[in-house]
Amino acid sequence: MVSNMRMVDLIEKKRDGKELSKEEIQFIIKGYTDGSIPDYQMSAWTMAVYFQGMTESERAELTMAMVHSGDTIDLSAINGVKVDKHSTGGVGDTTTLVLGPLVAAVGVPVAKMSGRGLGHTGGTIDKLEAVEGFHVEIENEEFIRLVNENKIAVIGQSGNLTPADKKLYSLRDVTATVNSIPLIASSIMSKKIAAGADAIVLDVKTGAGAFMKTLDDSRDLAQAMVNIGNNVGRKTMAIISDMSQPLGFAIGNALEVKEAIDTLKGEGPEDLTELCLALGSNMVLLAGKASSAEEARKMLIEVMENGKALESFKTFLSAQGGDASVIDQPEKLPQAKYTFELEAKEDGYVSEIVADEIGTAAMLLGAGRATKESEIDLAVGLMLRKKIGDEVKKGESLVTIYANSNDVEDVKDKLYSNIKVSKEKVDAPKLVHEEVHFQK
Amino acid sequence: MVSNMRMVDLIEKKRDGKELSKEEIQFIIKGYTDGSIPDYQMSAWTMAVYFQGMTESERAELTMAMVHSGDTIDLSAINGVKVDKHSTGGVGDTTTLVLGPLVAAVGVPVAKMSGRGLGHTGGTIDKLEAVEGFHVEIENEEFIRLVNENKIAVIGQSGNLTPADKKLYSLRDVTATVNSIPLIASSIMSKKIAAGADAIVLDVKTGAGAFMKTLDDSRDLAQAMVNIGNNVGRKTMAIISDMSQPLGFAIGNALEVKEAIDTLKGEGPEDLTELCLALGSNMVLLAGKASSAEEARKMLIEVMENGKALESFKTFLSAQGGDASVIDQPEKLPQAKYTFELEAKEDGYVSEIVADEIGTAAMLLGAGRATKESEIDLAVGLMLRKKIGDEVKKGESLVTIYANSNDVEDVKDKLYSNIKVSKEKVDAPKLVHEEVHFQK
Repeated sequence: MVSNMRMVDLIEKKRDGKELSKEEIQFIIKGYTDGSIPDYQMSAWTMAVYFQGMTESERAELTMAMVHSGDTIDLSAINGVKVDKHSTGGVGDTTTLVLGPLVAAVGVPVAKMSGRGLGHTGGTIDKLEAVEGFHVEIENEEFIRLVNENKIAVIGQSGNLTPADKKLYSLRDVTATVNSIPLIASSIMSKKIAAGADAIVLDVKTGAGAFMKTLDDSRDLAQAMVNIGNNVGRKTMAIISDMSQPLGFAIGNALEVKEAIDTLKGEGPEDLTELCLALGSNMVLLAGKASSAEEARKMLIEVMENGKALESFKTFLSAQGGDASVIDQPEKLPQAKYTFELEAKEDGYVSEIVADEIGTAAMLLGAGRATKESEIDLAVGLMLRKKIGDEVKKGESLVTIYANSNDVEDVKDKLYSNIKVSKEKVDAPKLVHEEVHFQK
Repeated sequence: MVSNMRMVDLIEKKRDGKELSKEEIQFIIKGYTDGSIPDYQMSAWTMAVYFQGMTESERAELTMAMVHSGDTIDLSAINGVKVDKHSTGGVGDTTTLVLGPLVAAVGVPVAKMSGRGLGHTGGTIDKLEAVEGFHVEIENEEFIRLVNENKIAVIGQSGNLTPADKKLYSLRDVTATVNSIPLIASSIMSKKIAAGADAIVLDVKTGAGAFMKTLDDSRDLAQAMVNIGNNVGRKTMAIISDMSQPLGFAIGNALEVKEAIDTLKGEGPEDLTELCLALGSNMVLLAGKASSAEEARKMLIEVMENGKALESFKTFLSAQGGDASVIDQPEKLPQAKYTFELEAKEDGYVSEIVADEIGTAAMLLGAGRATKESEIDLAVGLMLRKKIGDEVKKGESLVTIYANSNDVEDVKDKLYSNIKVSKEKVDAPKLVHEEVHFQK
């Protein structure tokens, strides 16, 4: 087919607020991926999208055009509905470590493709590597066999997934067009769909430590992603959860593995446990393993209590070369040389814990990567001893610092300036703000 | 000075509707000209400008930053106030040919830098080259000497004038950001100022044959340019004139020279004469050669009637090698081999002459360049025999076609489909819609 389309006309069409057709969006993404549409036209189009938005149909077509810009993962050899979870990113977010073994224990297949982290702490793979011997360098056939056998396996990102999204994201980053809901939503959804998800549960963070600071913006993003997913035939729902303070207590790789173990035993931090149950029950529901979210929640609590969730974690770690004995002997996880307590300077109530600054403090210790080339120290990190709303006495510990250096003054300074204690009683923030479902 | 500015932040600032400072605009234009700011950032910024506009101060700074991106012409050795005229472009616009000798004849210095044309007919230089021997390849010293001596000279575009504007215009052309009033206005004004104008009279065309189709848009563009000019210290005013039909009768290079001669004698088409008097009297006024536009108009009519305007044209042509005898013997101008009459098919009143399509018909004959490489035929073109509002009888000529080919069927078809005759009486369109002056 000879195309008479010209990118300049499609920029103008979007600029003037008109709807682009499926063929037009495919032309843009194909052309941008193969280089026939230059960056300078793409960035003008992207800025026009920033101002004019995209219709539901345009968002779905953009997502699928990005999915088809590269390889897609075929998980059809895995029995059952493959449900993926995605978080828009927060600090101390141990949910992925917990949710995999948890939902696998009730029979939901977890075929997870994961990456390394940049920022506060490592990614899921970095965290799992705190378990000696664990590795994700497995063949596709092995990966599929493991999921069918154990209901859970994790593989490293491989192949040429959504190259259009990668290229477009780099461009948006330097042209002030990151902050566009249709573009964020289609970027996230294209990656999940290319990675083979049949159904998707989204954890959209909101608050000071999240990309979306207000509940309204978070709701808009959640609805955008949920609608894209359903419009392209993937059952998708979202939970909007609080990120005004870090989730759970642990921020740091080995510390988060330990926290995940506790949570799988039903002994984890209240907020982390609650969020895992909220997300997990929706994953079980979308996988068709329960007939209501309430039933799914009961199933998950049961496997926490009867040890099957923890057993699932052990099996998973062993199957990929990990020393599963850490689960019963967590002291085998990498240990930091020094610990320091951040003592409260006065009596009162914790009123603020600025999540992203706390994350940065953990990164300063070595728990996260400042650049892609940085080495991670798996042992170091922070354990929050108090959370927002907790009463605190002068001299009590607010945070335990796990370090491999004995000079942590800069980390302490950062923590003190980002943990506020007030005289007045403060309420703990609401954890799960709302669920978002498909709206036609 | 070490700059901490980052283009991505300036794109964001404009995207969010904030005002950029002088230093920020200089950073953008300097960086874009020297290549340190890439096209893809500039096009995103330009699209943000499309949506958010620019303040008066930003427009003035952008104009001056583009002026200083390259060479500027120093006309200080020429005595008097150098007034330039600029038209936003139309069909059959012979005003420049008339206005130069006309205002020079009352003592206003005309130091004109001109170019070749692309489209309907040639540019000013192409038209003047219809006079045998005339050339614009003169040295700067000679140019200045001629203006001081004869009050008029024309030189070809030379030097590296407003390279930022050239680069930016090419980018806007392929990113759907041409149609932004602040960008159009600063582009035009930067070129006039770099070419050395002390004062500027603008002829902003409006109607079907103009870039700006509505009076409102034309007024916005005119006001934008007038304000920029005055804000950067150049007395500037604009006239909004009609381009719903071609101006005058002649469309074609030699034909327009002949029409200019007639007009300088006071025997030209009514609309062309009127527009030249309106623009010319404002040029004389801004040059300080008259104390009111009325007085200036009387001076211009006087030099038309007493032969001094025509004398000025002769002197100018001779001084640059042209055979000035064509003025008394216009049959010495290039003549087309064939003429054809476009006969009216019915009685009625001319109700529409689609200016740009008529221009395209002239280009088909060879009067204009389809591409930069095309050769122009100076002899060919069209003479309108009727204009909007004129009564016409069946068989009377609507247009005389001057051609060097005897097959003009395609041209006739184009003319017939773009000249409408109605049964009802039609009013001639208003020629000069309004004047636009500086508004703080």
